Order: sequence, then structure tokens, then C-alpha cells
Amino acid sequence: MNDLLALDAGGTSTRAVIVSPEGRCLGYGTSEGGNPASRGFEAAVGSVAEAILRARAMVSEDRGRWAGATLAMAGASLHIAGERFAERLRPLGLAGPLMIESDLLAVFHSGTFHDRGYTLVSGTGAIAARIRGGIVDAVADGTGWLLGDVGSGFWIGHQVMRAVAAALDGRGAPTALTQLVLAELQIAPVASGRLLGRVPAQQQLLAKVYGLHPVELSRFAPLVFAAGDDPAAQDIVHRAADGLAASLGAVLLPGFDGPLVFGGSILTKTEVVADAVLAALASSTRGSGTLPVDEAKALPAPPGVAAPIRVADGVVGAAVLALKGAGIAVDQDVFARLTGSLATLR
Amino acid sequence: MNDLLALDAGGTSTRAVIVSPEGRCLGYGTSEGGNPASRGFEAAVGSVAEAILRARAMVSEDRGRWAGATLAMAGASLHIAGERFAERLRPLGLAGPLMIESDLLAVFHSGTFHDRGYTLVSGTGAIAARIRGGIVDAVADGTGWLLGDVGSGFWIGHQVMRAVAAALDGRGAPTALTQLVLAELQIAPVASGRLLGRVPAQQQLLAKVYGLHPVELSRFAPLVFAAGDDPAAQDIVHRAADGLAASLGAVLLPGFDGPLVFGGSILTKTEVVADAVLAALASSTRGSGTLPVDEAKALPAPPGVAAPIRVADGVVGAAVLALKGAGIAVDQDVFARLTGSLATLR
Repeated sequence: MNDLLALDAGGTSTRAVIVSPEGRCLGYGTSEGGNPASRGFEAAVGSVAEAILRARAMVSEDRGRWAGATLAMAGASLHIAGERFAERLRPLGLAGPLMIESDLLAVFHSGTFHDRGYTLVSGTGAIAARIRGGIVDAVADGTGWLLGDVGSGFWIGHQVMRAVAAALDGRGAPTALTQLVLAELQIAPVASGRLLGRVPAQQQLLAKVYGLHPVELSRFAPLVFAAGDDPAAQDIVHRAADGLAASLGAVLLPGFDGPLVFGGSILTKTEVVADAVLAALASSTRGSGTLPVDEAKALPAPPGVAAPIRVADGVVGAAVLALKGAGIAVDQDVFARLTGSLATLR
Repeated sequence: MNDLLALDAGGTSTRAVIVSPEGRCLGYGTSEGGNPASRGFEAAVGSVAEAILRARAMVSEDRGRWAGATLAMAGASLHIAGERFAERLRPLGLAGPLMIESDLLAVFHSGTFHDRGYTLVSGTGAIAARIRGGIVDAVADGTGWLLGDVGSGFWIGHQVMRAVAAALDGRGAPTALTQLVLAELQIAPVASGRLLGRVPAQQQLLAKVYGLHPVELSRFAPLVFAAGDDPAAQDIVHRAADGLAASLGAVLLPGFDGPLVFGGSILTKTEVVADAVLAALASSTRGSGTLPVDEAKALPAPPGVAAPIRVADGVVGAAVLALKGAGIAVDQDVFARLTGSLATLR
């Protein structure tokens, strides 16, 4: 009974893996979102349990108890009582301590076993972090949909909707995004005439959008990649990349080298934003996107930053953290075993 | 019993005036917000009644009944049942019909008796309108805090907070706004060290801001005018002005001349934004501010637009609309009587 349980609980999906002390992934399962901050405690613990049961179904019965578990979650969740979570996982087979770790560390360690470097994540939110000595040394952004998360899925979707709202009443230039957004919202194309001075399609847009929770605007982010070389779409992509580059730039230390790990759908499911971030970093005139003061930073990026490692999620990193937490050193061989054995399970 | 009642019900304050058929203001009263969309029906009708009672207290008892009333409110409120409002006002002295009118028309007619021209309003929200034949012919923006209202009090306050959030973690340049915002929120100045990688002052900022309703960010707008020549503050002011100029530009028609009326605290309580809007309009390179596509518009502004009339609120215009609604022509003399007699009451 020396196996460990590693959990990567995101806002929309959760992954569980059972890992041997040698770093071999034995069972793997997924489920819906497992973050209590976004889903509530009961739904979150239910999702985590479901992922665990699926992972456990892949191992023999004598490996259904674990000496410890690591649960990686978004920063805000670090305030939750880990013991409450642990109590609920004990009947499933958890026989040791539960550690709660930052999802940033899990993303970072999904790309590398080194204990220093950088990570940049753009999913629904966006954040950059510097990792030093295996802990989060500094972050930039991750300030949420209202104050920042520049370049995130929410931010991009929000900019798409603002561009369309402006195009509809002539404040902004016409854009291919308009047709894509109206189709997505099942709004009939622009009719003639105005109601109380307002274009009908815009009136319908307002009614539909203000019926959503603001963060749901992230669902419109993919449209920016579907709009081809539309100038408004290109502008949004480049401002997203500038914002992400500014966040990463704020945690880069000259002379502090290490791998850079990219996480989150915006940086890993398409290449356009990731490439633009690297271009912005390489350029000495990289700016702060929509941020008010666009000051060029002359900071030379450390060499490791030039070739980021892209990871789909944080489950490998959660396993790395689980092993480290059990006092097991994770070197290149163990890391290769983790990623190789997990690949056969997914 | 030929006197009329004119009501200007805003989100944060309400004004009532009793006006004679000759256009003489006889009684005037104010109260809290009277817009049902933002305050709920009961609170709104209560505020309106309170303003009416205060106005009625200024007139002789034989003038305490009115042949009709006009209630000017923000566009969204046009969907409310006017009859519900009217029923509640009858016991107060309303003996005729109640008309509900756009607050945009009320602002416009607070500056002019002409039935054509333009208005640009920036208060908590922001909207531009073209008035033709005494009705709202076209609007631009007024799309709310999430989709637009570029250059409004909310928009400015939001940009202030985003600039400070970015300055705190080094994504944005340092700004004088930081100290002003932290003082306003009673957050101790930047301490040393980081918690989970985050600067403590930023962590506190996040906790406080996400405890507010988003539109409450408008309370931080005045800080932009208190920050002197701080570059971040100047940048916000200029982007606000560019956005407002783009909204106005979207409703300007070449050859369609008429007065331009400025309303709302951002354009009337300070001069800096209003002046920058005029400068942006005069410049052929005026752009769309934060809007994604910054296309120069070569439209020549009609001559009347060069010298906007600034109005404090929409109560004079509500009186103009009340008179017109009763079939009374409002010419230069009547308009001068309205404004002159109201000035003696305020």
C-alpha cells in the first residue's frame, strides 16, 4: 500500500491518477469540474470522487488503497479545509494525508520535473507564475474577469462581444465576428429600421448577453479563431498575446532561467496566441495590451523561455507533487515513466 | 387647472417641476433615484412621489392639481407600464394623462427647444443620440457596463481599477492611481513579501472589489481627475474621450445640423473629458478608443456640434416635453422662461 493518488481539479473538468512509488501511472479517470470555488463543495467533491472511482476501476483490488493524495486546484481554493475533502475521500481508499497544492505548480510540473522556471496559463482565466525551489515565488495577473485575466478565454470572448456591439451601431468598424456572434446567439441578421433609435440586432444582443453570467462570455472566445484574417479578430488576438506577454514579463527575472510551461486551452489548443506571445516576448517593444500604460520593457527573456512546453492539463504535475510529497525524488527517469505510462492510459 | 407636472427620474436622483402653460416653473423638488429598472418599482415610485410633494409644497393650494405629467426615464424603463405609475400619482394631484419619455430627449431639450440635433451623455453609462423631428432617430452605445458604455463613469472607474491591479503586480507601469485607490479602499500601502506569489495589497484589492457589484466601480471614476498629470490617468481620460467621440461620430450625419447637448456628470462636472471629446471630434484621426478597430472617420462634424450646451440634468427638457405633449409650442421665449424661472427655484 505505497501507491499514491493525484488529483487535478479544474473548473470544468477533473482528472485522477493512481501512481506507484516508481512513478508508474496505474489507473486514470476523469469527471466534471471539481473546484469548490466555482461549483460548490458538494458538487466538487462528487466530481473528484467520480474521477477517483474511474481510476480505481483500472487497477487490481489490492491497489485500491493509497498512502496519500495530492489535490491540485486553483489558488482561491487553497483556503478550503482540506480535511473536509480528505474525510470524503477516505471511504474511497485514501489511507494517508491529503495535500492541497496550487494548480499552477501542477501545470508547471506537468511539463517538467525541475523545481524552477515559469508557467503561463490562459484558460477561462489567465495568470503567469515564477516557480523557485518548487514553490510559487511570484504571480502576475490571475486577477479575475473584472480586474484582469488579460488574454484569457473570458477576456477574448468579452472583447469579441464588445467589438460586435460597437460594429452594430457604427462605433466600430464592421467585422466578420458580427455574423459569427449573431449566429451563435440565434439572432436574425441585421433588419432595417431602428427601435427607439437602436438597431434591432443590437437590442437583441443586449437582451441575450445581460441574461448571462459575465464569465460565460468565454464561450465566444473560439469565434476569434474562426474569423480568419478579420482585422478586428486579429487585433483581439494580438492584444491578448500582448497582455499575456506582459504578465509573463512581470515574473521573468534576468538570469533566473528554467523551463517555461504553457497551460490552458487558449495557449495549447490553438497556436496563434502562443506564437504571438513568443513574438511579443522576443520583441523589445512588447507592451501591455489594453493596460493603460504601454511601456516597453527591455528585459532580456531567459533562454529557457524561448521554447515553451505545452501541457494539456495538470494531472502529470499533480502526480509529481504527490511523489515529492511522499518524499520520493522525481528525476528525468521518473518523469519520463509518469508521462509514458499515463499516455497508455488516456 | 392647466398646470403640468414634469419629472426627470434618474438612477440616483429624481427631479419634479410644476410648470404653467406659459412655461413658468412654479414649484421644484428633488429626491433619490426614481428609475424602476435600477431601484425596483416601489422605491422608484416612492422617490418620484417625494419629489412631487416637495414641488407641490412650493405652490399655492389651488395649483396642486395638474392636467398632465411627463416622466423622463432611461430607455430600458420605457417598457414599464406607465398606467401603474399614473395610478400612484393621481392621489398626489395628477388629473390627466402620464406620458413616459426617453431621458435622452429630456437631456436634449434641457439644452434647446429645437427639435433636431445631437446629445451625448456620460454619467454612470454613456450614450450618443441623434434627435430628428423631436424623437430619438438613432443612438450609439448605451450598451451597458459589460458591452460598452465607453467613456462612462463605470468605464472610467473600471479602467482605473484595471490599471491599479496591473501596476501592483508589475504588468503595468506604476501610477499615482494606486495610492488613491488603496486609500479609498482603506488598504494599507504595499507591504513586503508575497502570499502564494501575490503582492498583499493586490490580494486585498481583489477581495474588496469582488465584493462589489461591478457597476459600483463607477465610484472610482473621480480618482482619474484627482491624479493630476499621471500618465495612466491621462491615458484613461483620452481613451474615454475617444470612445465618446466615436459614439457621437456614429450618429452624426453630414449636413444634418443642430445643437449638441452634453449631459451626465463626466461631461458636465469636469471639463477635461468634454474638452478631449471636442478635440477628438475636430481631429480627422479620431479613433474608437478601446474598440478593437481604430478606423479614422473622415466625417466632417456639423457646425452646431462645435459648441456643445452642457446641462446638469433633464428636468428642463421634461418640462419642454410636458408642454409639447399638452399641445403647447415651445419657442425661444417659452424656453427662456422655463430656464429663468427654474433657476430662481433651485
